[in-house]
Amino acid sequence: MGQPRVSIPLYEMANGSQLDQIHQVSMRILEEAGIAFYDPIALETLRAAGASIDDESVVRFDRSMIEELVAASPTSFAWGARNPSKSVEIGGDLVAFGPVAGPPYIQDIDGGRRLGTYADLVDLIKLTVATPNLNTQGTEIVAPNDIPFHERALDITYAHLAYGDKPIMGQYPIGLAAADSVCLARIVFGDRMDREHMLMAVINVSSPRRLDNRMLGSLRAYAEANQGVIITPFVLAGAMGPASILGSVAQANAEALATIAYAQLVRPGTPCVYGPFLATVDLQSGAPVMGAAESALAQLLLGQLARRYELPLRAAGAYSSSKLPDMQAGVEAVMSLFPAMLSKPNFVLHAAGWLENGLTTSLEKFAFDVDLLGVMLRLIRGVSWDEDEWALDSILDEVPPGGHHLGTAHTLARFRTAFHRPELFDYSSWEQWHEAGDHSAAARATNGWRALMDQYQQPKLDDAVEEELQSFMRERRKTMHPSDYE
Amino acid sequence: MGQPRVSIPLYEMANGSQLDQIHQVSMRILEEAGIAFYDPIALETLRAAGASIDDESVVRFDRSMIEELVAASPTSFAWGARNPSKSVEIGGDLVAFGPVAGPPYIQDIDGGRRLGTYADLVDLIKLTVATPNLNTQGTEIVAPNDIPFHERALDITYAHLAYGDKPIMGQYPIGLAAADSVCLARIVFGDRMDREHMLMAVINVSSPRRLDNRMLGSLRAYAEANQGVIITPFVLAGAMGPASILGSVAQANAEALATIAYAQLVRPGTPCVYGPFLATVDLQSGAPVMGAAESALAQLLLGQLARRYELPLRAAGAYSSSKLPDMQAGVEAVMSLFPAMLSKPNFVLHAAGWLENGLTTSLEKFAFDVDLLGVMLRLIRGVSWDEDEWALDSILDEVPPGGHHLGTAHTLARFRTAFHRPELFDYSSWEQWHEAGDHSAAARATNGWRALMDQYQQPKLDDAVEEELQSFMRERRKTMHPSDYE
Repeated sequence: MGQPRVSIPLYEMANGSQLDQIHQVSMRILEEAGIAFYDPIALETLRAAGASIDDESVVRFDRSMIEELVAASPTSFAWGARNPSKSVEIGGDLVAFGPVAGPPYIQDIDGGRRLGTYADLVDLIKLTVATPNLNTQGTEIVAPNDIPFHERALDITYAHLAYGDKPIMGQYPIGLAAADSVCLARIVFGDRMDREHMLMAVINVSSPRRLDNRMLGSLRAYAEANQGVIITPFVLAGAMGPASILGSVAQANAEALATIAYAQLVRPGTPCVYGPFLATVDLQSGAPVMGAAESALAQLLLGQLARRYELPLRAAGAYSSSKLPDMQAGVEAVMSLFPAMLSKPNFVLHAAGWLENGLTTSLEKFAFDVDLLGVMLRLIRGVSWDEDEWALDSILDEVPPGGHHLGTAHTLARFRTAFHRPELFDYSSWEQWHEAGDHSAAARATNGWRALMDQYQQPKLDDAVEEELQSFMRERRKTMHPSDYE
Repeated sequence: MGQPRVSIPLYEMANGSQLDQIHQVSMRILEEAGIAFYDPIALETLRAAGASIDDESVVRFDRSMIEELVAASPTSFAWGARNPSKSVEIGGDLVAFGPVAGPPYIQDIDGGRRLGTYADLVDLIKLTVATPNLNTQGTEIVAPNDIPFHERALDITYAHLAYGDKPIMGQYPIGLAAADSVCLARIVFGDRMDREHMLMAVINVSSPRRLDNRMLGSLRAYAEANQGVIITPFVLAGAMGPASILGSVAQANAEALATIAYAQLVRPGTPCVYGPFLATVDLQSGAPVMGAAESALAQLLLGQLARRYELPLRAAGAYSSSKLPDMQAGVEAVMSLFPAMLSKPNFVLHAAGWLENGLTTSLEKFAFDVDLLGVMLRLIRGVSWDEDEWALDSILDEVPPGGHHLGTAHTLARFRTAFHRPELFDYSSWEQWHEAGDHSAAARATNGWRALMDQYQQPKLDDAVEEELQSFMRERRKTMHPSDYE
């Protein structure tokens, strides 16, 4: 199975002049308001490149500077995997999916909600490796809370290297963590690190209009090591951006472009993914809201902007505000994923497992989302226009009025492949379903992730490599200062 | 609140030449294979109009005949309501929503699944009347199994007339039932029936390629009485149509066009809605499958075809194969509604309450779907391009880097209206949610439909009209022959 491709037509929410208006407003934001870079190294680089910097570390950019640097960012690039046959291309019509990233909590129906551990993270990596519907491994699928914060970059990166062979992400809370990821990856990947992009890392803009030295240090660690970054202004419209679609899109766009421009100054050709995270808040409580109609509309605009700038797009995953894998979670996941698919995404992080605004990884939702991704993969393949699809012989000659197509030659030839068949969706009759135990989708999903776990096979590392990783981590732990990571 | 309008751009799944291919194949089906009209009156009319009819009642149409008659079908028309301010327009950018139609069963969390009764139907009409998100009342929201089959058209129509004042549908299993609906409606609406279209009824094509005398009798009863019809080939691809998107779309299109053409022969100008129901079957079990990716793709093609023929479109509702209002139900509802919204629908039947392939009306799903329709209504309003949306003063002058927009003048001026706020979706923190009782979406939806019931107010009929309705039904029941309705 090759990498999935988005073959459905583009959906244009804005017309050309409307899209240009967003661009113009973003340029005004960059020229007039600017972006704060709280990092002396970045300020020096930006000053040397001609940006104007005020006393409060706010950088104002000429639009020509932004446009030139953004144009130098790659339109498409390969993201290498330990198993080269699992490498993915990020760009064009191709798309890669990764699991949820960042939740401190994990939940399943039997165990309830609890803080995640390293063992949970390893289990989730195994599930990710086992399913063909996720073609990248992601990062902190759940936080390993039993490991000291400053050591986590080591353990998370190690776990991804040791338990999987799909493309992996690097740790990104600060430059030192990024460096830990890079060092461990180099032990496994060797000089592929110089020729290929083996790590991608999320770089968050602390919206509105702010990048701190932690994120910028992380960005530099990856860019300087020839690795890639996913530039992610994190905007909950109404809080980190205006309470409007257009205002928040224009702001997030400005933030993304400025950060991508800086990445190109750090190392020309640094692979950058255009990846704003844009949701809303409930303006009466300030709470985050996932899967809103406004977020769907914003996603479609952000997709058009990525295409305008010829940048790879990271789009929304299976987001939800729900606390349970329930009807709300199902609605919100599709409200997020469907418009993402119409946006021609190149990378979809958080595509499986997300609950509770990203605070919880649900094992049941993970399994159900993976199944839902199969439906999305079918959706983006679009309509087949092969001659055989018309089934004209069946319609004109074989099936009489009031007959049926269940046994036609056409149907029999394709009954296994004509329609995608998810595994956790129940299509049985009420009687069959009742006899089987009245299981809800969430209850079936428990079987789903257990079955996936049974299918996992570890792609073993060489013993020598394994030993070198252990040795590096052992030595590194001795010299770490927890306060550096705070 | 005026009637909702679809303001988002069109999505074109097929290009012009592909769409024309579908049309050409449909024309071949009508010319070469034809449609069986098992009804002597229809055959006579069709023969007189120039169609070719074989010994097995199969009617073959010249494409010019189809094109001419379809072109005469209204592009847009008004569907009158008892309360004229609640009348809706069916056509253009406007859309009307109605509840699920036809399930024999009803379920709620407390009462479980049981056969519906007349009292259940009345309750569901009350819920439909109470919510602004459904602007038509539908028909048999659940079947009144405690009423003899042959009398149901009377009681269902009466219930809609007596308990609501939004646009209603007529009963359609046979011509006699349709006539019962028309007679009762005339008692309430008087000669508005001659000037306006007060009843719309579904006319099912028994796909593949078959119309029986029951449905054709019903079609005639409505068309001759100046009422409207929703022409609905019922195609589960793989069973009533080929196991392919294109084959089933081309067949359903042919079936719809032939039936619309006949309706125009019965009475030129009869309001017809282009309304194929197209889902798939699980080809390994033969079971119906709702919310599949293939159905979404088919819906988008059917939307384009309706626009090509300049016919009002009826599109998919909140379909689901699930037996419970669970995660599967949530996913399938959006997988059905989202592409329907992108198809510029004019009427969406089954927009609330549907479970179990349409065999069960769920009160909890009804309430949740109604809330979900609010999200869809926000979606189809699209992006506002008003100058104020840019929030430039806030971005450029008011909010510093790392600040927030929660208290800006811009946010404060719009905090009640900027973002749509559904009622049954939970956005509270895990702690708040846990304290409130760990309720799932389905559990909250129980409160939802109870609250809606409390909001219901009966738009009373005049006592004289009420008496006339009762009298008509009393007399009519005396002269009915159950066997006529079998």
